[in-house]
Amino acid sequence: MIFEPPYIAVVFTSTRAAVDDGYGDMSNLMADLVNHVGGFLGMDSVRGADGRGITVGYFRDDEALKTWRENLEHREAMQLGREKWYDEYSLHITRVERSYTWSRED
Amino acid sequence: MIFEPPYIAVVFTSTRAAVDDGYGDMSNLMADLVNHVGGFLGMDSVRGADGRGITVGYFRDDEALKTWRENLEHREAMQLGREKWYDEYSLHITRVERSYTWSRED
Repeated sequence: MIFEPPYIAVVFTSTRAAVDDGYGDMSNLMADLVNHVGGFLGMDSVRGADGRGITVGYFRDDEALKTWRENLEHREAMQLGREKWYDEYSLHITRVERSYTWSRED
Repeated sequence: MIFEPPYIAVVFTSTRAAVDDGYGDMSNLMADLVNHVGGFLGMDSVRGADGRGITVGYFRDDEALKTWRENLEHREAMQLGREKWYDEYSLHITRVERSYTWSRED
């Protein structure tokens, strides 16, 4: 999925810890919650069999991203993520300048 | 992995076609080739069991990315990708403004 630049892409790379302990439910809840944030555009997310994952969230502007980062339930989820769900993660806050898409069907 | 902003992150999301037909070898060759591009910083890449993948390549500046995009072997690989390896892909060229990393071991 692409959008009309400029927009914000948040690239979150992570390694999951071995435990689930509520991770799946929380992950679904967050995906549901972020959909209610004005200016949230969409998300791409992949996790490999080795526990490495990349999630990219797309936001219209800084304000939309700020709303999501300050969401209380999201902040609690981030805290729990550090306590039990992730071994490590990195976050890149980026501004998308150009985007392209291609499909075999086009 | 994170770097000192600003830098460029190229977010490539894709769905692989069912055939391998040289994909694995080409993928390894490209990973090797891009390492020789001056200003290439690193790469994160994950593919899920359903064929969806996200690769994020990090470059120091526009010139480094341009060198890679114009690389002849890379251009051939992109062409083959459209001919047989991908059903669809999207590409976001972004500028990283802030980055953070966290590890349980720190």
